[in-house]
Amino acid sequence: MSGGISRRELIAIGGAVAGVAAMTPLAHARMLPLDMDRDVFAAAVAELRAIVGEDWVFADEASTISYRKSEIPDLRGEHIPSGAVAPANVAQVQAILAVANRHGLPLWPVSTGHNMGYGMATPASSGQMILDLKRMNRILDFDADLGTILVEPGVTYQQIHDYIADNNLPYWLDVPTVGPIVSMIGNTLERGVGYTPYGDHFFMQCGMEVCLADGTLLKTGMGSIENGNTWQAFKWGYGPYLDGIFTQSNFGVVTKMGMWLMPRPPVYKPFVVRYANVEDIAAATDTVRPFRMNGLIPNGVLMMGALYQLAMFKRRTDIFDGAGAIPEDLIKVEAAQNGLGMWNVYFALYGTDEIIAAVEPILRAAFTASGGEVLTDAEMTGNPWFEHHKTLMRGGMSLEEIGLIRWWGPQGGAVAFAPVAPAKGDQTLAQSALATEIMNSHGFDYSPAYAVGGRELHHIIFLMFDKGDDDSSSRAEQCMAEMITRFGERGWAAYRSSVSTMDLVAQQYGAANREVNARIKQALDPNHIIAPGKQGIA
Amino acid sequence: MSGGISRRELIAIGGAVAGVAAMTPLAHARMLPLDMDRDVFAAAVAELRAIVGEDWVFADEASTISYRKSEIPDLRGEHIPSGAVAPANVAQVQAILAVANRHGLPLWPVSTGHNMGYGMATPASSGQMILDLKRMNRILDFDADLGTILVEPGVTYQQIHDYIADNNLPYWLDVPTVGPIVSMIGNTLERGVGYTPYGDHFFMQCGMEVCLADGTLLKTGMGSIENGNTWQAFKWGYGPYLDGIFTQSNFGVVTKMGMWLMPRPPVYKPFVVRYANVEDIAAATDTVRPFRMNGLIPNGVLMMGALYQLAMFKRRTDIFDGAGAIPEDLIKVEAAQNGLGMWNVYFALYGTDEIIAAVEPILRAAFTASGGEVLTDAEMTGNPWFEHHKTLMRGGMSLEEIGLIRWWGPQGGAVAFAPVAPAKGDQTLAQSALATEIMNSHGFDYSPAYAVGGRELHHIIFLMFDKGDDDSSSRAEQCMAEMITRFGERGWAAYRSSVSTMDLVAQQYGAANREVNARIKQALDPNHIIAPGKQGIA
Repeated sequence: MSGGISRRELIAIGGAVAGVAAMTPLAHARMLPLDMDRDVFAAAVAELRAIVGEDWVFADEASTISYRKSEIPDLRGEHIPSGAVAPANVAQVQAILAVANRHGLPLWPVSTGHNMGYGMATPASSGQMILDLKRMNRILDFDADLGTILVEPGVTYQQIHDYIADNNLPYWLDVPTVGPIVSMIGNTLERGVGYTPYGDHFFMQCGMEVCLADGTLLKTGMGSIENGNTWQAFKWGYGPYLDGIFTQSNFGVVTKMGMWLMPRPPVYKPFVVRYANVEDIAAATDTVRPFRMNGLIPNGVLMMGALYQLAMFKRRTDIFDGAGAIPEDLIKVEAAQNGLGMWNVYFALYGTDEIIAAVEPILRAAFTASGGEVLTDAEMTGNPWFEHHKTLMRGGMSLEEIGLIRWWGPQGGAVAFAPVAPAKGDQTLAQSALATEIMNSHGFDYSPAYAVGGRELHHIIFLMFDKGDDDSSSRAEQCMAEMITRFGERGWAAYRSSVSTMDLVAQQYGAANREVNARIKQALDPNHIIAPGKQGIA
Repeated sequence: MSGGISRRELIAIGGAVAGVAAMTPLAHARMLPLDMDRDVFAAAVAELRAIVGEDWVFADEASTISYRKSEIPDLRGEHIPSGAVAPANVAQVQAILAVANRHGLPLWPVSTGHNMGYGMATPASSGQMILDLKRMNRILDFDADLGTILVEPGVTYQQIHDYIADNNLPYWLDVPTVGPIVSMIGNTLERGVGYTPYGDHFFMQCGMEVCLADGTLLKTGMGSIENGNTWQAFKWGYGPYLDGIFTQSNFGVVTKMGMWLMPRPPVYKPFVVRYANVEDIAAATDTVRPFRMNGLIPNGVLMMGALYQLAMFKRRTDIFDGAGAIPEDLIKVEAAQNGLGMWNVYFALYGTDEIIAAVEPILRAAFTASGGEVLTDAEMTGNPWFEHHKTLMRGGMSLEEIGLIRWWGPQGGAVAFAPVAPAKGDQTLAQSALATEIMNSHGFDYSPAYAVGGRELHHIIFLMFDKGDDDSSSRAEQCMAEMITRFGERGWAAYRSSVSTMDLVAQQYGAANREVNARIKQALDPNHIIAPGKQGIA
């Protein structure tokens, strides 16, 4: 450990810096674990260096900066890592966990650390050391008959995409937004989604290897059977199905994961249904739901608000430079000029020409009756938004949604809130009204999207703010707390949370849930060294 | 407790009786928990009576007989309950658990106790008291827009079927074989399957209420959110996904469960593909797999061997009364006379006439090329086997598979073994060869079925024997042990097990798996009062 500043001084600096607009990133780059003596920390770091080599432990200010970066507000310096350690293999992960247990060093595992909108690589509480698994980046198996893959945490969607292309395999990968830089394991563990019929990543996941805090290596499902060949073919295994408890969790470090891939269809046809008015979202939802339930629409449906769409490719000042939220009329005009409706509903058909010809008229009739304008490549080719979603719905690579982060300015700033509700039109109207009221009252624009997975609706609210402006950051924190709280009072709780609100959300899921999680945590990680605070679990 | 026979004497009688062919059911009807004094047991029973009333505690020989009945071999009396208690509601379940904790009384929860082929209501070890949840039989909620249902453990598939019919709801229920008498919760917790596109019951399950050993009531997923309305709409909730650990498990008592229902399709068209030869199963499997992966066949595919089919409606002596296994030639002749092939592959299409017309030619071409004969209602109407599967694949009610149990005689006798493998043709050939060898060597017929869920293959081997003949029972036990062991050595392990082989199967899933299960068990049920031994978990 370099420098002569103590942990408490670092915390003090963090606190002081938070109060002023100008701050150097260095002052915020790291912070020791609470209650850990710096000599103990130094001893732990020395042991970690012995395991992974000098180059793969980051425990000084400069080398830690990249792990500190996130786009969410953090005015009080509550999500500052103490450093990072990057193992090359499972044996090193086990050895690192042993060190962490010995010294009480909390570790925050990340796969590639691109948890956009939720805090990137930053930990739930300051002082945790990032366990960076990016070096473990091998594709371990690919069964071309079954369309299954087994990967390590550092493997990105881009890497799998390239592997499929290089080997000309007849499969598509389901990719989340900003997929190229994202880890398949990281996204799946957070229960992220994509946009093809294989969009529910956790459902398509099959088999894990988990390193527990004491170094025990658990292979879930069929993975532990000697001479077995079914690990990636069958999810459930025998006895209690365990995979689920390692998602959105701090019960272990997932070091391998299997996934199913979608057979490449002969024909792919993307659609957008354009709705003119804000209140049309109710009719759109009620039209989508039965088609998701009966499978006529095979992929998760994105219903994108105009402002969410515009923010992908434009800055706020391109549209408006007045005070307060952008007026609805202005959004409507801007949307129309760009070929967008106030709501834009994206889905696709996959199959043969004959199958698509049999399904398409049913969908067209229903969406038209609901007041939507059904459009395809014939009308929309070249429209940047249509092209973007066309890419996503066939599992293509896109980084375009990163644009959202810079809505207010070059310093960026965005945090996501995604409450879940039944996929019913009245739910969208009530949620959109509540979100608009709260966000506008804090001076922010409401830029919504809804995703209909199956019977449920994820409301994706990207709160865009200016991280270069402490007032904006402060309002963003207050706005997010109010949204979580008031949505929660109505029974709408988030399916996922940024590191800054994990505990707040966890409380909404009740005491029994927390108690059970706490007991399992105690059973599997008695020293609480893996990601304390993740999803509100100490 | 009536009668003057002590527990040890009962055990002694059980042991003695096992050695002779003639035994009265009464002598076997009940056995006290090992290491429990009869006075303690009597005290516990008195407390249970105070909770549920005199009529709902069964702790004498006569009233316990029905809980003792099963079709699996049990020569050494290892699966004999001490009695049964039937609560009327969740509060009574909690009170019963408190009594059980106080006295160390192990409880074996069953929903309706019809776990056919796996031991019915009988416990993994003798002396456990059956916690019979059949009285908790309310349908608590049905959302007609979302097609979701919330039920209690005692609710049977017949009851839900009738509810749907009575209310003319546009949904189909996915039903396992012998569905009418089976609990939806019980089947789903054992990860049972059905035959429509909603056949993977655990995947279609959404939300549980679980009563833990200490009485804590956990609602999983979205169930604990105050004012929430999303419990049956969204599976995963927030934080670790817990539902899975309560399936094939003894971590808690599931007292409520949500389930998704399939929208009733406008048109339904069932198919059977008939294959003439035993070895055709490989080509059939390799033809089915890609259609399950790309969804052109939307339901799980049953590939039924001739003898499995014949045994549903015939007795063994109808076909053969010689020694040893029935010769293949004879099976072939009998099959042909009944319109059956040596393999009969059942699947269905669901949708509109246009959609089915677009898909059917693709399937026909592939199955015909694989050597199969593709048949539908046009050729097969009235064939009892076709009609049976036609009923199953639209979620209809059937008890016809119960016929299998009486293959050898009126006393019945059958136990299931279902190893899992990748859905590849070479796996079927190797598995069928191994099973035939082992079963024939023990004097049993190999009457197989395979189910292709998705990328995996369940080999459903119903070992039919004569429970009225101790020699037959003894050979059945040995045969089953050899099959589990030798399949396991090849890497093929069962997805489920009868109560008599739970531990043997669990061993094949490795030490880490057992260790993690043991730790979670200890955390959630420290006195081990819920179903000790279930799936090998103490």
